[in-house]
This record gives sequence, structure tokens and C-alpha cells, in this order.
Amino acid sequence: MQIIAHAHNAFTDKFGIPRQPLTDSVIETRIVFTPPFRHPDAIRGIEGFSHIWLLWEFEHSQPSKSLTVRPPRLGGNTRVGVFATRSPFRPNPIGLTCVRLLRIENGELIVAGADLRDGTPIYDIKPYLPWADSHPDASGGFAAQARDYRLRVDWSQLKEASVAITERQKQALEEILSQDPRPSYQNDPERVYKLDFDKLNVAFRVIEDILYVTEIHLI
Amino acid sequence: MQIIAHAHNAFTDKFGIPRQPLTDSVIETRIVFTPPFRHPDAIRGIEGFSHIWLLWEFEHSQPSKSLTVRPPRLGGNTRVGVFATRSPFRPNPIGLTCVRLLRIENGELIVAGADLRDGTPIYDIKPYLPWADSHPDASGGFAAQARDYRLRVDWSQLKEASVAITERQKQALEEILSQDPRPSYQNDPERVYKLDFDKLNVAFRVIEDILYVTEIHLI
Repeated sequence: MQIIAHAHNAFTDKFGIPRQPLTDSVIETRIVFTPPFRHPDAIRGIEGFSHIWLLWEFEHSQPSKSLTVRPPRLGGNTRVGVFATRSPFRPNPIGLTCVRLLRIENGELIVAGADLRDGTPIYDIKPYLPWADSHPDASGGFAAQARDYRLRVDWSQLKEASVAITERQKQALEEILSQDPRPSYQNDPERVYKLDFDKLNVAFRVIEDILYVTEIHLI
Repeated sequence: MQIIAHAHNAFTDKFGIPRQPLTDSVIETRIVFTPPFRHPDAIRGIEGFSHIWLLWEFEHSQPSKSLTVRPPRLGGNTRVGVFATRSPFRPNPIGLTCVRLLRIENGELIVAGADLRDGTPIYDIKPYLPWADSHPDASGGFAAQARDYRLRVDWSQLKEASVAITERQKQALEEILSQDPRPSYQNDPERVYKLDFDKLNVAFRVIEDILYVTEIHLI
């Protein structure tokens, strides 16, 4: 397996990467090809597709020998078969994500909706073919039950000493935080969580279904 | 990369495998796990999903060094970038197919819609998540133009000496032949083509948009 590209984005930390990739995300990822694939020929015609597939490496997961995993979506206590989940802990650590192709810049693909950490190696890019790949009536198994769960993000408790952020950063953080980046089995209103995104370190607490951003520092 | 399973079906020949996989196909494929993945734990919960992804090996393709390919869909003469196609000739020979999960039998997954040859090695199986994977409004680029093209299959010229086939075999052959298995750049009404499927050797000719089945023999 050859690495054909790397993903670059503001997800410098694994904590906070959306578990449910959203192709209408405001967060952009750049796909930077490695030589010899860094050539206009390799992507000729790709601009006609609105969506593309990324096949990528779960870089920080060891190949798993376990046949079952405990999905965060099920609270972290229920075991299901590895082939019934999209968990990174699987025999061959290859991830699959559909992203929206926003534009091409200097031979790089700019996409939205990638649930990849900055620097992730990419093994393949394929066009999304709606008549083969789109099955809106497919039933989603156990994973369906938590899909609409969202936290409300509250900024009123943000300390004054925090750094100023741009409107775009705020939108991106709303998107990330509303998906509840906490481990699913944790529910401690006193606990302060921190995540890194876009060179910012963001502290927050969660009380019931409201997430309070408390501090933001530059990393 | 470990092989986790093999596909088994009636596509003993590469010629005739649908270029456009159809999840409402009448042709079934069995996914037979290899040890240690041949265990009920590995697929626990998968029965809740109507569709699954197969990641598999383009077994008879050499890893390609070319950055462009000539898709049959474009007549075989136009070059497009390898990452703008689903061609088997790509840097990492991994195929991606969404199939319908029909049932589980003796620990094997029975699926419909696989565009895989009999014996194909499988590297991963993932559940299809409609809210992440289904994008019915995605635009299909150059590949969209030929999607509705179909031949009419005519059985009136089938020689009497041909073997009798079951209704199910006939349905399967209709499905395969109507998709026009000829190389796209060929259009010779005199030429007789042959393909193997389900231990049958099937001869046919194509005149304009009608495909005439002329002979069927047991292999």
C-alpha cells in the first residue's frame, strides 16, 4: 500500500474529531498529494464530482485482534462485531469517509466533512457515484439511535482572559462541540475537558445537554 | 493487510461482471470469512444493517503506475485521472462496493450487488450509514452520462442444442447482458462474444441496441 496523499486540517488533536462526519461542515481539509501523484493528470475530471471518497489510515490504531468493539454511541459498554462498526480498531486499519469536494487549489483538493486528524495518510481517492453509493433508505442498525443527539453550545461563561477567535473558528467550534466530544460513558458536570483545534486550546464543561465553553488559549 | 474473507459467486469469468453494481441484483454473493474472523462475534449486530461496504482486492490488476485511465464508459479513448474513476488500475488496487445484506447463513453473509469475481479477497466489511454515506444529490461527473444505457436481451435466436437453464439463471443473465458486457469501443454486429457465468458458457451477438443470445453450453 502506497501513501498517495496526506490530509491537512485544524484537527491537531484526536479528541474533538467528529464521530459523525458532516459534508456540510464548515471545517475544510486539504488533500496534498505525494509525488508522483502530485500531478494534474492524476485528478483530471475530478472537478465534475460534488463528492469523493477517501480511503485512509487509522494511523494511531494498532491492528486489532479483537473481534468485537464497544462503540461510544452505545455508551461504551455494549460489544458488537468489528464488521458491524466503523471503529478504527479493526483487522486492517483503513477508514472510509465521504467528503464534499469544494474546490481545487494548486493541485490540492479542498474538501469538507473529513473526520481525519491533521497529517493522516491517504491510500485512495474515488469519485462518489450516487446511483451506486447512495441508498437513502438503507437501515442504519444500532448506530441509528444516537444520530440526532446534539448539545447546545453556550458561550456566556467564557472567561475574559480568553483569546479572541474569528467567526469562522466559532462556527467550527460550535460544530465540533455540539456533537459532544466527551467519551460517551462520562457525565460529570464538574469535569473540565480540553481540546485542541486550529491552534486553540478550548476548555469546556457539560451540564445536562448544554456545553459551556469556559476558556480559550493559544497553543 | 490481512484477508478477512473471500467472495464466492457465479462470476467465474471477469468478462460479464457488471460495471454498474446494482443492489437490487438477483445475483447472490457469499462472503466466507477466513479464520480467525470466522466467528459469530465478528459480525454481531450486522443483521441490523440493510447495506454494507466491501473493501476488496482488484486481484488480477497490477498496481498501476499510470496517472490516467481510459474508462469504458467514455468509449475507451478519453483519458481521465485515476482518482476521478473507479477503475481497477490504480496505485493501491482496492475496490469499494456497497452491497445489500440479504441474510446470514452459517456465519456467511449473503449479499446482492457485488461486482466481484468468484474468489476475490476481501479486506474489510463496514456497515453502510445512510446519514454519512448517502448523498442522493451528489453530481456524478463524466460517469453520469452512460448510467441509463441498457440493451434489450432477445432469446429468439437461441439454438435448440443449447442447455436448458433455470428461470433464476435467465434472470441473472438478462441482468448481466442488458448492461452490455462488450468492450465499449467495439460495435461489430457479426462478432460473437462468449462469457462464463454459473458454469454456463453463453454466446451472443449485438445488433444496434439488441443483444441476441445464440448458444448456451455447460462449461
